[in-house]
Amino acid sequence: MREIDLNADLGEGFGPWTMGDDAAMLDIVSSANLACGGHAGDAEVMFASLRQAAARGVVVGAHPGYADREGFGRRVIPMPPDAIARMVAAQVGALQGVAALAGVEVRYVKAHGALANLAADRAEVAAAIAVAVRDLPGRLALLAISGTELEVQGRKAGLPVVAEVFADRAYRADGRLVPREVPGAVLHDPEEVAARMLRFAETGRMPVLGGGEVALAARSVCVHGDSPGAVAMARALRKRLEGAGVAIRPFAGG
Amino acid sequence: MREIDLNADLGEGFGPWTMGDDAAMLDIVSSANLACGGHAGDAEVMFASLRQAAARGVVVGAHPGYADREGFGRRVIPMPPDAIARMVAAQVGALQGVAALAGVEVRYVKAHGALANLAADRAEVAAAIAVAVRDLPGRLALLAISGTELEVQGRKAGLPVVAEVFADRAYRADGRLVPREVPGAVLHDPEEVAARMLRFAETGRMPVLGGGEVALAARSVCVHGDSPGAVAMARALRKRLEGAGVAIRPFAGG
Amino acid sequence: MREIDLNADLGEGFGPWTMGDDAAMLDIVSSANLACGGHAGDAEVMFASLRQAAARGVVVGAHPGYADREGFGRRVIPMPPDAIARMVAAQVGALQGVAALAGVEVRYVKAHGALANLAADRAEVAAAIAVAVRDLPGRLALLAISGTELEVQGRKAGLPVVAEVFADRAYRADGRLVPREVPGAVLHDPEEVAARMLRFAETGRMPVLGGGEVALAARSVCVHGDSPGAVAMARALRKRLEGAGVAIRPFAGG
Amino acid sequence: MREIDLNADLGEGFGPWTMGDDAAMLDIVSSANLACGGHAGDAEVMFASLRQAAARGVVVGAHPGYADREGFGRRVIPMPPDAIARMVAAQVGALQGVAALAGVEVRYVKAHGALANLAADRAEVAAAIAVAVRDLPGRLALLAISGTELEVQGRKAGLPVVAEVFADRAYRADGRLVPREVPGAVLHDPEEVAARMLRFAETGRMPVLGGGEVALAARSVCVHGDSPGAVAMARALRKRLEGAGVAIRPFAGG
Repeated sequence: MREIDLNADLGEGFGPWTMGDDAAMLDIVSSANLACGGHAGDAEVMFASLRQAAARGVVVGAHPGYADREGFGRRVIPMPPDAIARMVAAQVGALQGVAALAGVEVRYVKAHGALANLAADRAEVAAAIAVAVRDLPGRLALLAISGTELEVQGRKAGLPVVAEVFADRAYRADGRLVPREVPGAVLHDPEEVAARMLRFAETGRMPVLGGGEVALAARSVCVHGDSPGAVAMARALRKRLEGAGVAIRPFAGG
Repeated sequence: MREIDLNADLGEGFGPWTMGDDAAMLDIVSSANLACGGHAGDAEVMFASLRQAAARGVVVGAHPGYADREGFGRRVIPMPPDAIARMVAAQVGALQGVAALAGVEVRYVKAHGALANLAADRAEVAAAIAVAVRDLPGRLALLAISGTELEVQGRKAGLPVVAEVFADRAYRADGRLVPREVPGAVLHDPEEVAARMLRFAETGRMPVLGGGEVALAARSVCVHGDSPGAVAMARALRKRLEGAGVAIRPFAGG
Repeated sequence: MREIDLNADLGEGFGPWTMGDDAAMLDIVSSANLACGGHAGDAEVMFASLRQAAARGVVVGAHPGYADREGFGRRVIPMPPDAIARMVAAQVGALQGVAALAGVEVRYVKAHGALANLAADRAEVAAAIAVAVRDLPGRLALLAISGTELEVQGRKAGLPVVAEVFADRAYRADGRLVPREVPGAVLHDPEEVAARMLRFAETGRMPVLGGGEVALAARSVCVHGDSPGAVAMARALRKRLEGAGVAIRPFAGG
Repeated sequence: MREIDLNADLGEGFGPWTMGDDAAMLDIVSSANLACGGHAGDAEVMFASLRQAAARGVVVGAHPGYADREGFGRRVIPMPPDAIARMVAAQVGALQGVAALAGVEVRYVKAHGALANLAADRAEVAAAIAVAVRDLPGRLALLAISGTELEVQGRKAGLPVVAEVFADRAYRADGRLVPREVPGAVLHDPEEVAARMLRFAETGRMPVLGGGEVALAARSVCVHGDSPGAVAMARALRKRLEGAGVAIRPFAGG
């Protein structure tokens, strides 16, 4: 593996409010997960983000989440799986509508926050999201956290599924994320993160917390841009990867 | 002219709230203008409305309006025309997304409330809406109030434009609606309404308030369903038209 | 016990939408639980409801719920108890603000939907609500479902607490409600409901599903108005109570 | 005049989003105008802002605006004056509710954005706001832009009215603000701003754009904190005033 995708959650402002440094991140990533007016974003933010991404050759995906701006999509809003599918369809459709006006194509879908976490574990939620992505126009790919039910259900639904790993998170021997509350779950050292991801890009193997490695079939790495430190870490990672001859390429429709 | 379309604004509930008698109206109209989550509607309402319409062979259009549920889209929210285009694109896209999940096709767009009123008079607003409709996928038609700027700009943008008249409204000699506040502007007698519309369907000529007639190139008649009296009026109109041999046919994609 | 309070959830419209028949219910109940802009209601609805209630001598309480109009406050939105207290304070404060303008006093607080259900079982949620009610101005009473943690925590916080029973629900031997999903949990026969409530008003004893009775220290009966059948049931109940010489009196500030 | 109040709009975040540097501004101002959940703010933001202000001895006012987060209260939402009064009452009431929980007292009301601009010119809007402020509990003062209808109507309603000037805005000979679009309307040089405000604090006279001065009976100066430059300007102003022996004191309830 000598190329990899870097993705980040962008377009997460709302009305007068901004979130993170989208301009900086668009110089780093190859894929932009854009909020769709659910947990964040509105028609203005979507349009501006689509245009900015396109201007830098960054591929755009939809990033639907619970329609809960106050909670930023980080709270599970109890809904039947069918209602989740409709919510996802409405949000991705909204982004696709604005994208049509912006002359940009939406290439993939990645679930946000509490919705992604629920879809990682619950087959019926994962299947509902997969059905929505499958039925939407544009042959959308699904970007799923490696090793999750969403990855499984996306493949079952016949979608092009790409798995992602998180640059700043530790992994278990079964390939799943170490939960945040476990010591060592979140990595803070940019050099360590860059070294781990370079090795992963070159070998497809991820260090396991406590020792050893696990092979992960991921083609994308999720990086964050919600703080100056996060942007610096993402930038260092890109530099290290490119310095070692790993190309940063969008996984979808590049 | 021996056939005509009847359209109504439907799917205007929100969460636990309903508006009008959609089930009754879907037995009367041939085209349903469905709210898109702006002035009314949400993913659940959209999905249910799409399915109900499709089950009765009623053609579906998108009915975007100002994103102002509290004001039901009846207040002008000051926005530049470009922002209006993005708002319309996001709303129609949302309905299209849910429609894809429901296996239904959205065939046209009709602006709602204060947005429709503004687009009737302001060329730049009308043009913005026309551009959004043109750029959205699905070769959407535009259903515009007869004689308005929206009709003009829709044609300029190369859209399939269909004009509508209102069953219960009086007309001026220039083919525009008599403003609501003018005495006689709103008709209340179902028999009178049915007689006027039958004559219009047969001749393309509309009575003018104060006397005379005006020729209108409209292929659709807008009826209301927001009160028991309104439903009864719409039902009487359909019966009268069909009784006289005028077929009720959707103008789009029937 | 020769007098009792009847309460109902009212003012649950939003923008252009209405819910139930508030005018009919205000002729039946002695206390009106008014939505505060969280699960339902807005400044216009609040003002109109306050005035309508005051015009008929109905005492007004605040009816806060999760700020989730789409879910009508029936979904648990995950929040720490402290955040629940702040949400309740903001909502009750909003109603009090509008009430000041309307010249009406808010006398009590009753939690709505999923918030009330959670507060029935979780001491920390119940305590948070009790603290908010205690700290708000106006010496507000707390109307709590009989036998719940909210009743317990309200008393602990030193609030005037009044317990309520539901006219159309069956009870267990421990004085708690039979869960809705259990057969027989919901009563549908107006005569049976009226007979049960009359006996309760006279004796303070409630029939237990499966046989026997339980003594409940409730001074208020909750009735519903969200369907024509519900209004009829409430009206029959009032008539039966008054016919037997039981006075319908607000529990707070009459 | 050897003392003056500095006020700023604070607590204008929402959910996950922040606006400006509230912590820095709370070290500069003596009065904090807190958003009330209309154009910005929510129960969490209100509570945290109330506590932060109180911890630094900053007096708190309510800052109601159009309930339009997407437009940040900068768009006129068409509403009858009575509805504006109800909206203001609901928003100020919400802040008062949260303030009761936070153990803080709300001392005054200042209208925000488009609402303030409308109330500056339209007597009926100004009167509606004044009535709401008068009817709310707590003997609230009204902080109004100097020379506006709101100032006039506030006095007519018998409210304690305090006028404010803007540190970074030019004035006309009639004491009103030079409209933003006029060249020279907005001042950018911190030293110039500080010198003007010091002179105003000492003399009550304000330079007029084009030459001359006008006497203004203002006791408060509005400063901004929405950019690093704005914070620096406000800090320089406070330093200059204090250096010249002008005390920074809240106008209300200090």
